[in-house]
Amino acid sequence: MKRTKIIDALSSTDFGKEINVKGWVRSHRSSKAVDFIALNDGSTIKNIQIVVEPNSFDAEIIKSITTGACLNVTGLLVESQGKGQTSEIKAESIEVYGLSPTDYPMQKKGQTFEYMRKYGHLRLRTNTFGAVFRIRHNMAIAIHEYFHSHGFYYFHTPIITGSDAEGAGNMFQVTTLDPGRIAKEGKVEYDDDFFGRKTNLTVSGQLEGELGATSLGAIYTFGPTFRAENSNTPRHLAEFWMIEPEVAFVDKEDLMDLEEDFIKFCVKWALDNCHDDLEFLNSMIDKGLIERLKGILNEKFVRLTYTEGIKILEEASCSGHKFENEVSWGMDLASEHERFLVEEHFRRPVIMSDYPKDIKAFYMKINDDDKTVQGTDVLFPQIGEIIGGSVREENYDKLMGEIERRHIPMKDMWWYLDTRKYGTCPHGGFGLGFERLILFVTGMQNIRDVIPFPRTPKTAEF
Amino acid sequence: MKRTKIIDALSSTDFGKEINVKGWVRSHRSSKAVDFIALNDGSTIKNIQIVVEPNSFDAEIIKSITTGACLNVTGLLVESQGKGQTSEIKAESIEVYGLSPTDYPMQKKGQTFEYMRKYGHLRLRTNTFGAVFRIRHNMAIAIHEYFHSHGFYYFHTPIITGSDAEGAGNMFQVTTLDPGRIAKEGKVEYDDDFFGRKTNLTVSGQLEGELGATSLGAIYTFGPTFRAENSNTPRHLAEFWMIEPEVAFVDKEDLMDLEEDFIKFCVKWALDNCHDDLEFLNSMIDKGLIERLKGILNEKFVRLTYTEGIKILEEASCSGHKFENEVSWGMDLASEHERFLVEEHFRRPVIMSDYPKDIKAFYMKINDDDKTVQGTDVLFPQIGEIIGGSVREENYDKLMGEIERRHIPMKDMWWYLDTRKYGTCPHGGFGLGFERLILFVTGMQNIRDVIPFPRTPKTAEF
Repeated sequence: MKRTKIIDALSSTDFGKEINVKGWVRSHRSSKAVDFIALNDGSTIKNIQIVVEPNSFDAEIIKSITTGACLNVTGLLVESQGKGQTSEIKAESIEVYGLSPTDYPMQKKGQTFEYMRKYGHLRLRTNTFGAVFRIRHNMAIAIHEYFHSHGFYYFHTPIITGSDAEGAGNMFQVTTLDPGRIAKEGKVEYDDDFFGRKTNLTVSGQLEGELGATSLGAIYTFGPTFRAENSNTPRHLAEFWMIEPEVAFVDKEDLMDLEEDFIKFCVKWALDNCHDDLEFLNSMIDKGLIERLKGILNEKFVRLTYTEGIKILEEASCSGHKFENEVSWGMDLASEHERFLVEEHFRRPVIMSDYPKDIKAFYMKINDDDKTVQGTDVLFPQIGEIIGGSVREENYDKLMGEIERRHIPMKDMWWYLDTRKYGTCPHGGFGLGFERLILFVTGMQNIRDVIPFPRTPKTAEF
Repeated sequence: MKRTKIIDALSSTDFGKEINVKGWVRSHRSSKAVDFIALNDGSTIKNIQIVVEPNSFDAEIIKSITTGACLNVTGLLVESQGKGQTSEIKAESIEVYGLSPTDYPMQKKGQTFEYMRKYGHLRLRTNTFGAVFRIRHNMAIAIHEYFHSHGFYYFHTPIITGSDAEGAGNMFQVTTLDPGRIAKEGKVEYDDDFFGRKTNLTVSGQLEGELGATSLGAIYTFGPTFRAENSNTPRHLAEFWMIEPEVAFVDKEDLMDLEEDFIKFCVKWALDNCHDDLEFLNSMIDKGLIERLKGILNEKFVRLTYTEGIKILEEASCSGHKFENEVSWGMDLASEHERFLVEEHFRRPVIMSDYPKDIKAFYMKINDDDKTVQGTDVLFPQIGEIIGGSVREENYDKLMGEIERRHIPMKDMWWYLDTRKYGTCPHGGFGLGFERLILFVTGMQNIRDVIPFPRTPKTAEF
């Protein structure tokens, strides 16, 4: 008999029909007359109720079915009498695929997220993590859908790289040299390493992404990136996924339009496609979640230069608002400043642009004032910076000037400079940390809880 | 004025209208009366012809426009007189975004792929690589589309891992320990490494994927995987992308159905969505390409056990067919055997199943004969094995038996075993090397030419 997914069984009104479902037991409660088993197969956050008349079954077997067990159930689809349920199954046969011993770590309700992180392989079977990872899937699909329908090509930039020009943080080294042998021989021979040179895990695909955009017109990356920073915070991972679109023939306005349109598309996708999971998270994790998501869609994002932003912050400071970090032109905005602008002053997302060049990367397009660059970051409530973007400096001489001024080691970067040497073009792009987006869309508070198997200092389990 | 993409300009019949296009010069030829510039922006393999009347422009500027230059052109869309073209542009204004010096490495036609590999950043601007990477994009979209519409969740398995149980080949070590310091101090302290232990780059996401499938019901991975094998062949990369679906509640027949349906969907997607690029590759690279792709769709794949396959090969051998490797039950099939079955004997794809257990991995479901396991590999013309799949052993004791028999280090694998301990379920899945698929769909011969920036022994450029 063909299996019916529980999401389909729950929406079926084909009452009286015999169907087959398979899944894991979320709860089993017995009354005198009848047993109720809540079964879930991951296709939806909702369980289907299996109604078991004990007389029709081997009592020992029914008793052995505890939370976490896996069942194959055939029975009649019947209209549910319970509140909020449409259909349930009157069991005719139950096959136990796998029992769940009493030490099953996920059987209690109300376990902390910290506890559940130790069981990354089993927390996936809970309501919260089921919801989070279905939403994570849907966000990935939204991203591919958006870029594909807008003529961007998915472009795989390298994970192992020899280049070091981004300077975005500490890097993980990738090697086939045997550390034990290095210790014994007292020397390091990179000639013997797999790539014949020192190599690292990528911190960003942007520079290679620019190679794609300046040939194929518009590309996006969506892949893992790595930072070997010893940051044990709810916002940092050593391994995380980034989306980095890069597009030729755009100016600053085009780029800000793209950022706003893209992020609204993603949020709308979640609201349109993840209704049940969002309802659950809204009720159990974050009461303001759905309102906040809808709020993103309702209004046009504020567009504000850094200089205008500083002025607003200075005025707030004069009017008595206390910031931990004093405000002055040239500083890098702290989270408190970003959140003041977004959550208190404007009460909607802000795209901030034209930052002082010394707080931004070497590749950003320099404005005529020679003081600011065409960065275009999107600031969100709760999150702060969710997108970091910029128009790129396409002029070879200006770009080289910045590289030299900053003493960036360019020996391995001839290929990047070639894009400005041969047929250079105006272009820009942005980066979105995927897990930051998932935090925003799920209302979860710790980034370790929105990636299946988080990598953080001293932790690489599973 | 809003830019029109060249793919849209070429299909427009809005003749007489003023439009703007931007792109890179593929060729520039001058005649007495008029100049023709072929412009490409990556949106299609086709160029749009820009017709330039020299009298209307500065002669020096027009002369400076050579292959590789980047232009911003506004002009009238006119019906083309040339064969095979629908529309062209009569230039009214030309802005040069970037010239292309005479040493531009991609200007000559007929350069070898080997030469072009040295210019991975610029080969993207050629017809062949434009076609290959647009098709690569479309295959990625097809994969997400297939799994999303079939209720699979995209699941990110870790890239950095401490586990070593797959034993799929040599691994790259990931570390923040300073090799120079190790050499100096003469000792390796993994306690000081970022993760407090030895870690590697993943060789497969399958084992973690099983964690997803046994909670969410059906997942797929699509991410980079790594093998530090010193193989300098047209079929091997040190860094490549894999797709690994894993699904609960399937048996061997279901799994073979899934494999066949999935791969046919991908091939059909290419035929439906990559017409111009396939036509180009079919005419320039591989005359049999489109026929071969269509051939995949036409017939049901042969389903054959390993034992049946060996019998056919032995009979062929008896009838005088020469194999380099002698055929006998228990051997691992070589490429020549796979290709004989697919290309000569059946002349269509084969799903081979039920392999001797000693030539397959520890996690495959053991048949009742205790000699064979439920592997389900798909063998393709030209490629050989394109998919490697299996039903997984879901019985805890049998799985442990194999692990012990093979002396697999399981100290870090408690989480994998837990899936069999708590609510175990029948499940299976398969792996598809993305670049193998792209080779098949493009007709390209070298795997280095279907990934933007290949990583191979001694090569990690860009």
